[in-house]
Amino acid sequence: MTDHRHDRSFAERLIDPASIAIVGASDDPTKTTARPQQFLAQAGYRGNAYFVNPRRETVQGAKAWPSLTALPEVPEHVYIMTGAEAAIAAVEECAALGVTAATVLSSGFAEDGPEGVEREERLRAAAATGSVRVIGPSSLGVVNPRTGVMLTGNAAFGEPNIPAGGIFVASQSGSVIGSLVSRARGRGIGFAGLVSTGGEADLSLGALCESMVDDPGVTSFALFLESLRHSEDLASFARAAAAAGKPIAVYKLGRSDEAAALSVSHTGALAGEDSESEAFFRACGFARVYCFESLVEAPGLLLRVPTSPTPVSPRVGVVTTTGGGAAIMVDQLALHGLTVVGPSEDLVATMAERGAPIPHSGIADLGLAGARHDVVTAALDALQNSGEFDLIVFVIGSSARLNPELAVQAISERGDHEVPIVAFALPEAPDAAALLNTSGVPAFRTPESCADVIAATYHRVPATIGGGTRFAVDADAPTAVLDELESGQLLGRLGVAVSPFVALDTASLADDGVEIDLPFDYPVVVKVLSDEVPHKSDVGGVVLNVTDANGVRAAARSIVANVAAHAPEVVVDRVLVQQMASRGLADALVGYRVSRDVGPIVVLSTGGVLAEIFADSSIRLAPVTRETAREMIGEVKGLSVVTGYRGLPEGDLDALADTIVAVSTLAVSNTEVLEAELNPVSVRPRGQGVLALDSLVRTAVSRDHHAAAPRTDDTVAAQS
Amino acid sequence: MTDHRHDRSFAERLIDPASIAIVGASDDPTKTTARPQQFLAQAGYRGNAYFVNPRRETVQGAKAWPSLTALPEVPEHVYIMTGAEAAIAAVEECAALGVTAATVLSSGFAEDGPEGVEREERLRAAAATGSVRVIGPSSLGVVNPRTGVMLTGNAAFGEPNIPAGGIFVASQSGSVIGSLVSRARGRGIGFAGLVSTGGEADLSLGALCESMVDDPGVTSFALFLESLRHSEDLASFARAAAAAGKPIAVYKLGRSDEAAALSVSHTGALAGEDSESEAFFRACGFARVYCFESLVEAPGLLLRVPTSPTPVSPRVGVVTTTGGGAAIMVDQLALHGLTVVGPSEDLVATMAERGAPIPHSGIADLGLAGARHDVVTAALDALQNSGEFDLIVFVIGSSARLNPELAVQAISERGDHEVPIVAFALPEAPDAAALLNTSGVPAFRTPESCADVIAATYHRVPATIGGGTRFAVDADAPTAVLDELESGQLLGRLGVAVSPFVALDTASLADDGVEIDLPFDYPVVVKVLSDEVPHKSDVGGVVLNVTDANGVRAAARSIVANVAAHAPEVVVDRVLVQQMASRGLADALVGYRVSRDVGPIVVLSTGGVLAEIFADSSIRLAPVTRETAREMIGEVKGLSVVTGYRGLPEGDLDALADTIVAVSTLAVSNTEVLEAELNPVSVRPRGQGVLALDSLVRTAVSRDHHAAAPRTDDTVAAQS
Repeated sequence: MTDHRHDRSFAERLIDPASIAIVGASDDPTKTTARPQQFLAQAGYRGNAYFVNPRRETVQGAKAWPSLTALPEVPEHVYIMTGAEAAIAAVEECAALGVTAATVLSSGFAEDGPEGVEREERLRAAAATGSVRVIGPSSLGVVNPRTGVMLTGNAAFGEPNIPAGGIFVASQSGSVIGSLVSRARGRGIGFAGLVSTGGEADLSLGALCESMVDDPGVTSFALFLESLRHSEDLASFARAAAAAGKPIAVYKLGRSDEAAALSVSHTGALAGEDSESEAFFRACGFARVYCFESLVEAPGLLLRVPTSPTPVSPRVGVVTTTGGGAAIMVDQLALHGLTVVGPSEDLVATMAERGAPIPHSGIADLGLAGARHDVVTAALDALQNSGEFDLIVFVIGSSARLNPELAVQAISERGDHEVPIVAFALPEAPDAAALLNTSGVPAFRTPESCADVIAATYHRVPATIGGGTRFAVDADAPTAVLDELESGQLLGRLGVAVSPFVALDTASLADDGVEIDLPFDYPVVVKVLSDEVPHKSDVGGVVLNVTDANGVRAAARSIVANVAAHAPEVVVDRVLVQQMASRGLADALVGYRVSRDVGPIVVLSTGGVLAEIFADSSIRLAPVTRETAREMIGEVKGLSVVTGYRGLPEGDLDALADTIVAVSTLAVSNTEVLEAELNPVSVRPRGQGVLALDSLVRTAVSRDHHAAAPRTDDTVAAQS
Repeated sequence: MTDHRHDRSFAERLIDPASIAIVGASDDPTKTTARPQQFLAQAGYRGNAYFVNPRRETVQGAKAWPSLTALPEVPEHVYIMTGAEAAIAAVEECAALGVTAATVLSSGFAEDGPEGVEREERLRAAAATGSVRVIGPSSLGVVNPRTGVMLTGNAAFGEPNIPAGGIFVASQSGSVIGSLVSRARGRGIGFAGLVSTGGEADLSLGALCESMVDDPGVTSFALFLESLRHSEDLASFARAAAAAGKPIAVYKLGRSDEAAALSVSHTGALAGEDSESEAFFRACGFARVYCFESLVEAPGLLLRVPTSPTPVSPRVGVVTTTGGGAAIMVDQLALHGLTVVGPSEDLVATMAERGAPIPHSGIADLGLAGARHDVVTAALDALQNSGEFDLIVFVIGSSARLNPELAVQAISERGDHEVPIVAFALPEAPDAAALLNTSGVPAFRTPESCADVIAATYHRVPATIGGGTRFAVDADAPTAVLDELESGQLLGRLGVAVSPFVALDTASLADDGVEIDLPFDYPVVVKVLSDEVPHKSDVGGVVLNVTDANGVRAAARSIVANVAAHAPEVVVDRVLVQQMASRGLADALVGYRVSRDVGPIVVLSTGGVLAEIFADSSIRLAPVTRETAREMIGEVKGLSVVTGYRGLPEGDLDALADTIVAVSTLAVSNTEVLEAELNPVSVRPRGQGVLALDSLVRTAVSRDHHAAAPRTDDTVAAQS
């Protein structure tokens, strides 16, 4: 047996194997299990291909081997197309032989009930007996158009000439890989590899992609995700790809999911699962696209536009031979928050001198007559060299389809200029797209995907996700809610400004003779102090605007009585007395939670029901920097009232940002905290700080916090 | 000369002329002006075609005629491709001869400054000397693929076999018509006609389309609009098309336009131009689409789904052979507010019995193995006959591209069932689309356009737009703002509940001895009463919470002093004293204005800055019915707090609806009013009505309203 492993990387053996075996190969040409043999022949795979079928002498004219063990060499990559039990046996055999990669088409694993889960455990165990890595189960396969590796049963690969190129596609959905090929075909877009990752029982999508980062033929990645499982591997891949300068486009399902089940605080509802994905992708430096076809159209532009340290608003120039088409494009760009910049007066004059006259307007409309090679060349020369644009969008009219030697040819010749051009042809024009895409001018089929990709490209930021990010919260572990004294103290230690407070025993307040010596001024609010009453107002547990000691005593008595009436099981032995803050300019909500999918996150929204109704929040992986916190403030529309909208007085945004940062550090400073919500955070005028008026903190472990917490009038001073 | 006009309609002579002439036909085959001759030959036009060119004997081998007058017959339709001045002369000649339709390619008219405007006047005048109707100027032409009429210089029509079918396209942008043909080509979608309407100097897009409604070959319309000019013609066309049962799809530019310039009230900013378009299209019964390609994909489904009297939430079933593809579709449907319904347990059992087993879930996923003719037939048979769905969306996997004889064929055979099917193929699959579209199964190229069209189809409502709608407001006509007394009285007469008020002379209040006898209880608010002070609070013109007669006197003095300080030019001789209303559950804003584009409209939003920030408003053409007013309330997200959100107390929605209806009747009862804004309208608990606390009314004509208005304590009682 030959062994290539000494000098070949895992990735090479996975995506460009020198030898392969198909286990469960069929002789019946109409069967799915017969396809890899047909596809390999059609694609001209040059390595050694073995077909394992113990029940036959030959399959489709080739020798049928009785087992992997019987092969004359250890194949680098094995594709297993049998039933589930036979697949486990085959993986065991792979492990024993020293096979590098085993891709499993078979279904009947974790998706198939308790028995399937047990089978998947055995599959993993089988792999672990050796060093074989498993792709799948339920993987529609691994394809490498560069070298004719066609380990797939997907009928979509039955066509000759699968386009080769630099995009590596990894998809949690199997049928997507073939569909993307069909949509890229004939448009000058090609693939370095396509993998359907299936059940990810062993090798996750992120880990698989990470292994591909060093492949020089892979220039970019396109991911199709159904979920964020194994997000730690995605994060690790993101770091590796960022280091290698290889951009990643991602399309993810689940944008419309119902919000996660209601949690004790409102933070859960405000930051639904998709906003978690959004925050995660942002931290990973991924370019998220929202149109399906954008997934194959995005890499071209991502490669042309390096990631900017912060989101930038590019100066987009639109030049066209079709005013109507350009207007569609401008509309779409504006809907994505991108602004079209018109050429300056000087530039218009320069263009006219060089034979590319345009009317004065935002769009450089060369008109029907402008669909000439010389006119387009002159126009692009002037626009690209003007220093007035970061990106040129060329909207091409009818000539794109029938006369590509005119405008299209001229555009293609300027694809390597430092100011990138993208093209959208109003008619269906695949040949134009092919010429443009191969010339460094990303070409788009619809105005929607064109704007989608431009926005995704310019809105992405460098990968910031750290290696130490915590994931995998155990949803079933016991949790406890801190009482307001404890949570106030915790937040105070983080550096959050909280209205000053003391805890008082209700027993001591029963005696009218006892002095109450508060370390802050009246008026105060008196609240029930108990971790068993998360919604204090609902049980009459809050008395506002108390102006003297007698009022405090009366409030405490009333609270004890109210809670006894509403929740007789709760013993109220303490109240919290807190200084009433004067009304600020606006109320914000600062939340923190540890997400099952993406780890610690921090959320900002306005307080109250409207934030929920308008889904008006900003979310990031925690911890965040002060700059990120300022970005978040800018993203919450409801906070416009304190960020300068219509000349309204500005709030203390620095202090609000500091509070967000402080709460977000829970991610690194206190791993017990699973959830924290400061609501409301009163935003005061500039220079006057912000003040958290109420808070709720939930921790991972149950503990005897009454014993741990001080029992007497322990105060925390406001910090601002 | 032959004259066909006795027995042929205008539309026939326009779109299917028995004889045509090209004025300005070129002999140089590379010129735009040579194209119609080439295209007519290629398309096999069978009528008489004449080519007019006074400078030549022949053009491209055909006889060149010196003038229209020299022709042996009066052509029914003339295409004029000369310069602007020659075009005017040609139209004059058409008018003199009795030509029916003259389409003008020439530019240099209204878009070209004052001289162009003057030329356009002369063009119109030339047409008016006879009965010829002009299409254009700047029209890229008129095409009828049914009969080879190719009156166009658009290079896009240089291809043979322009697909014929039932869609009539009218576009304000010229290049769009050819591009739509290229995007429909090969997909089983065809056209009854395509017209570029250009400058609409004479025949507007709406009027042209209306003339086509009776053409039996036209089954639907697709409109590409840049603006709503001549909206009264669009409205008339909408009524005619609705009567004939011919659906209309529309794509309109300008979704991203900056809001109209600030007006005296905020209504302008809240109801930007695009929301006016939205309201207009709704009233016209148009199906508005947002993806460009949807324009050709929509008619298929619009023809299958009759307009429902009110927007319906269809029960959409998704069936698929590709789980991932179906998940994309479900996501898109949900983003458009459409909910996917899963098959019932019984139906799942029935499907399994018939050989189409699916896992229990929202999506009927037949799996890879389900891409068989018999399985798909059994599945569709069960689903369509179950009574559980209004629409079936079939998401087809790889087989759509390479094996259309499997699932695609089976789907196509069930296109005539009363429960319609639409199809989305995950791969690029034009042949499948062709088979499906011609079988009554609308097929879509992208998941985005598929969901777009389904939403547009089910959200459209019957055309309600009346014949008497007022349009064309003269923006330059003088206007006047009513003072609050007058506007309160006006609204009271409409039936709007206004907090009771009286006007008092400031002179009479100077004397402390004079009794103040208010016909309502304290507390009251005192406000400056002047049409010269629209923003009263800004000049210290409002004093709240006045509890007695002395307070009223003090408030009046303070207002006089404040206004004198802020706006010395304003003479304050009266104040308005109005009963303070107790705080309601929420504040609404009810606005009315006469839009330049679409006539009278009514707007509902919440009061305050957040409604602006979130663009949270609902708008309709006025007047509206109570049902429509209730729909509007449901569309304003900020009013969720009074419509049952999270168990919050419900507001008096009937009273709010009545107020919207009352204000909207200004459209028919008072044509002088150009704008009215009730802000805030306090929404009280159910049964307690609503109350307009402040209002602003602007009228079309300047008038001496101080003289017209009563000078003494004239009161209007609250009505609820």
